Amino acid sequence: MLQVDLNCDMGESFGAYRINMDEELMNHVTSANIACGFHAGDPAVMRSTVKQALSKGISLGAHPGLPDLAGFGRRNMDITPDEAYDMVTYQIGALDAFAKQEGGVLRHVKPHGALYNMAATSRPLADAIAAAVQGIDSSLILYGLSGSELIQAGQRLGLSTAQEVFADRTYQDNGSLTPRRLSGALITDSEQAVQQVIRMVKEKVVLSTSGKRIPIQADTVCIHGDGAYASMFASVLCSRLAAEGVVVKAVRE
Amino acid sequence: MLQVDLNCDMGESFGAYRINMDEELMNHVTSANIACGFHAGDPAVMRSTVKQALSKGISLGAHPGLPDLAGFGRRNMDITPDEAYDMVTYQIGALDAFAKQEGGVLRHVKPHGALYNMAATSRPLADAIAAAVQGIDSSLILYGLSGSELIQAGQRLGLSTAQEVFADRTYQDNGSLTPRRLSGALITDSEQAVQQVIRMVKEKVVLSTSGKRIPIQADTVCIHGDGAYASMFASVLCSRLAAEGVVVKAVRE
Amino acid sequence: MLQVDLNCDMGESFGAYRINMDEELMNHVTSANIACGFHAGDPAVMRSTVKQALSKGISLGAHPGLPDLAGFGRRNMDITPDEAYDMVTYQIGALDAFAKQEGGVLRHVKPHGALYNMAATSRPLADAIAAAVQGIDSSLILYGLSGSELIQAGQRLGLSTAQEVFADRTYQDNGSLTPRRLSGALITDSEQAVQQVIRMVKEKVVLSTSGKRIPIQADTVCIHGDGAYASMFASVLCSRLAAEGVVVKAVRE
Amino acid sequence: MLQVDLNCDMGESFGAYRINMDEELMNHVTSANIACGFHAGDPAVMRSTVKQALSKGISLGAHPGLPDLAGFGRRNMDITPDEAYDMVTYQIGALDAFAKQEGGVLRHVKPHGALYNMAATSRPLADAIAAAVQGIDSSLILYGLSGSELIQAGQRLGLSTAQEVFADRTYQDNGSLTPRRLSGALITDSEQAVQQVIRMVKEKVVLSTSGKRIPIQADTVCIHGDGAYASMFASVLCSRLAAEGVVVKAVRE
Repeated sequence: MLQVDLNCDMGESFGAYRINMDEELMNHVTSANIACGFHAGDPAVMRSTVKQALSKGISLGAHPGLPDLAGFGRRNMDITPDEAYDMVTYQIGALDAFAKQEGGVLRHVKPHGALYNMAATSRPLADAIAAAVQGIDSSLILYGLSGSELIQAGQRLGLSTAQEVFADRTYQDNGSLTPRRLSGALITDSEQAVQQVIRMVKEKVVLSTSGKRIPIQADTVCIHGDGAYASMFASVLCSRLAAEGVVVKAVRE
Repeated sequence: MLQVDLNCDMGESFGAYRINMDEELMNHVTSANIACGFHAGDPAVMRSTVKQALSKGISLGAHPGLPDLAGFGRRNMDITPDEAYDMVTYQIGALDAFAKQEGGVLRHVKPHGALYNMAATSRPLADAIAAAVQGIDSSLILYGLSGSELIQAGQRLGLSTAQEVFADRTYQDNGSLTPRRLSGALITDSEQAVQQVIRMVKEKVVLSTSGKRIPIQADTVCIHGDGAYASMFASVLCSRLAAEGVVVKAVRE
Repeated sequence: MLQVDLNCDMGESFGAYRINMDEELMNHVTSANIACGFHAGDPAVMRSTVKQALSKGISLGAHPGLPDLAGFGRRNMDITPDEAYDMVTYQIGALDAFAKQEGGVLRHVKPHGALYNMAATSRPLADAIAAAVQGIDSSLILYGLSGSELIQAGQRLGLSTAQEVFADRTYQDNGSLTPRRLSGALITDSEQAVQQVIRMVKEKVVLSTSGKRIPIQADTVCIHGDGAYASMFASVLCSRLAAEGVVVKAVRE
Repeated sequence: MLQVDLNCDMGESFGAYRINMDEELMNHVTSANIACGFHAGDPAVMRSTVKQALSKGISLGAHPGLPDLAGFGRRNMDITPDEAYDMVTYQIGALDAFAKQEGGVLRHVKPHGALYNMAATSRPLADAIAAAVQGIDSSLILYGLSGSELIQAGQRLGLSTAQEVFADRTYQDNGSLTPRRLSGALITDSEQAVQQVIRMVKEKVVLSTSGKRIPIQADTVCIHGDGAYASMFASVLCSRLAAEGVVVKAVRE
């Protein structure tokens, strides 16, 4: 039986600042990556997002980021592996407390933004993040870019991993994402995006920008939480996957 | 057998800023209240303080504070009980993750500074903090000012509590601390401070500023972590308590 | 000739978080109170708001707040007058640099939220804020609640002041605003709100909740920047004031 | 007449955290680079440092840094030129307000830590910082690494610049500092450090690690503010420069 998880970043409001399509998207996704207060989110938002996710039966994940609220965690920072290890630990622990209080269980960890990107290519950062996860709870599932250093770091430590793919990004011949600064990096046609996901899940390949069939592991698909059509796309993707006989459900160990 | 705990605020460094008498004081105190990143402390400091405390056999506690690094958590803020509930949850969770990774167990929670003071007299805040602690782990011991609303809130929820007394502060006839702005609020004579503690532990009373014997419960004594003589006083107090047959050890459920 | 200023808090976005009705409201108000990065706003937002205001011919003001982004500067904090003096200085200076670079001139200062409220009733805080303003530029106009300690503090120092009134709040017999927790604190009928402003400007009185005519000075009216109808109300108020022969324009020394 | 300026980073305390050798060092240096609240410093510290510097006759400079208090502004962050332009503007403005209130005049701007290093090699960042300085006050002197992109950016805009050299760092054949990770990067012999400065000022050359005479412009020498011997070294350097007939005084337009 084929299955795939749809994950989405959530709980990114902060204080009086609301970024809030969470409720609608929770009708379609199966895993929530909940911001932990460094790049976004605050304690009140964390609690309400945990509650909402639990009420919808969505799997809870921590979404630790760089300490850069002003930059939404999207600006690379030159942190050491030890700093990554400590800041990821802190954030997972914080979210875990809300999960416990609300009767839920933390299932996964997915780094955010610049931390995710840096951990995809830097083995020392990837190892530090994987070690932080494992040191807290070795049953936590580590989410990372499919085929990345972060996934490999998790596997070396014996963690369950979820290899993430993108519906709306193109891939190069070497299996990496086409950098956003290059033309053709984004897939804006919704049907093409759906087809790419179906192919990745069913055939375990992606067509590169040059047309090559590149092997890829697709455990989970990133659903962007922003933009007016986020929820609509998630809905369509769910239906189409179901029609193809793919079960949409959270990753479980 | 009479016993008492000596607790001290620790892990209050931040980034390049070092406040560091922790190591020396750890030779004398039995419980460490570790800052959690809001009023002081950062992820790296939290880890190193947890490690140090574990290596010295000192009991680990979370020391949540107000989100006011610039004011060191000492300025009252008009927060709601819900905000207190959430910010205490967040901080306990964050510290707990370091405790777990380092093979330790979180034993207690003591609010810091203005949060401690507000929770001593505001029942709604006290209830919120006690509920946060209980919701994470009902075996955590709640530290609060002896006889305060916070202690009562903990007791109402069935939490173990540790009633805290001060060696270097005088008490009024109603059992409350003499406000710092009044003369005679501080005990600067070290022998007098030691005698006050011994009396509180052995006779369960404190002499008020007017000379009355006021009943008081003394489960734990606050040892200030700053000042050149902090460590010296802690050392003297330990010896004198031992000479009086009082066992100095961490509170246990 | 009768005249009145309409002021509005602006530039309250932060990083990826957008609170943005500024552009529309700038068609109706005459003075912009621009957040300075403590309770809201960031350097990029400050610059773009200054630019926008200048392009619309709107008077520039600094809107300093408490260092509490998470609470949007709405939570009272127990700060000292010295702390108020320093934090207001810092924020005015920061905004002034953007004004200079963009070829504008800073005209006024209006404290935000909890700082505004505390300065309305605490003479020491009011004096500190007025002194900060005067120390930077004695031609700056100090905005404060009509009849408040802040206005009096400014007058004692010889500053120009702008006494602020509210269209959508009721007033008590003693001239103070009806506290929000009491019923009847808010005026929700738009015609009644317009009438209140017209009466305050033309007759220099406000009708209290008990129907008394209370003298009031109305130099500037607070236009709230949030809510779907903010811009619509501002537009109506402008027309009605014009019809009554009241010139809507920024306060000038 | 030969002259040189000695500059030192100051005002780096924050809240309850004191880093404080400023007072002693102010007896020897001629220019103070005062932290502006992003990487270090807070409004109260800024005021007291400005006061202290003025009372000692030391030239006032702004020392803007990255928004990274936890990392003391030493971690590179991937900011855009626009972000640099805005954050430098904000910080200079904030410090300038204190200078004005205390009756002083801001004379120079020196970026801090990672921002200084990035601006030394990135022309777009250097241009942005120079433009921020010029847009506030074209008589401000821009401090930067001798021969760096930042100095060139300032010169292109017609700003006065102060080319900074280091007493305790070695230089490579291409005139750049030996990276700290390489052995031989630091000069730990105090006499050698003094000789290097004298040679740079009098002969306008520095001996590279391979012994070559490299031309260098030395308008100002960086005196580190930390370490037990900072003040002692500053004192020795002053005496020796005087003995060589070099006037130690602040850079002036």
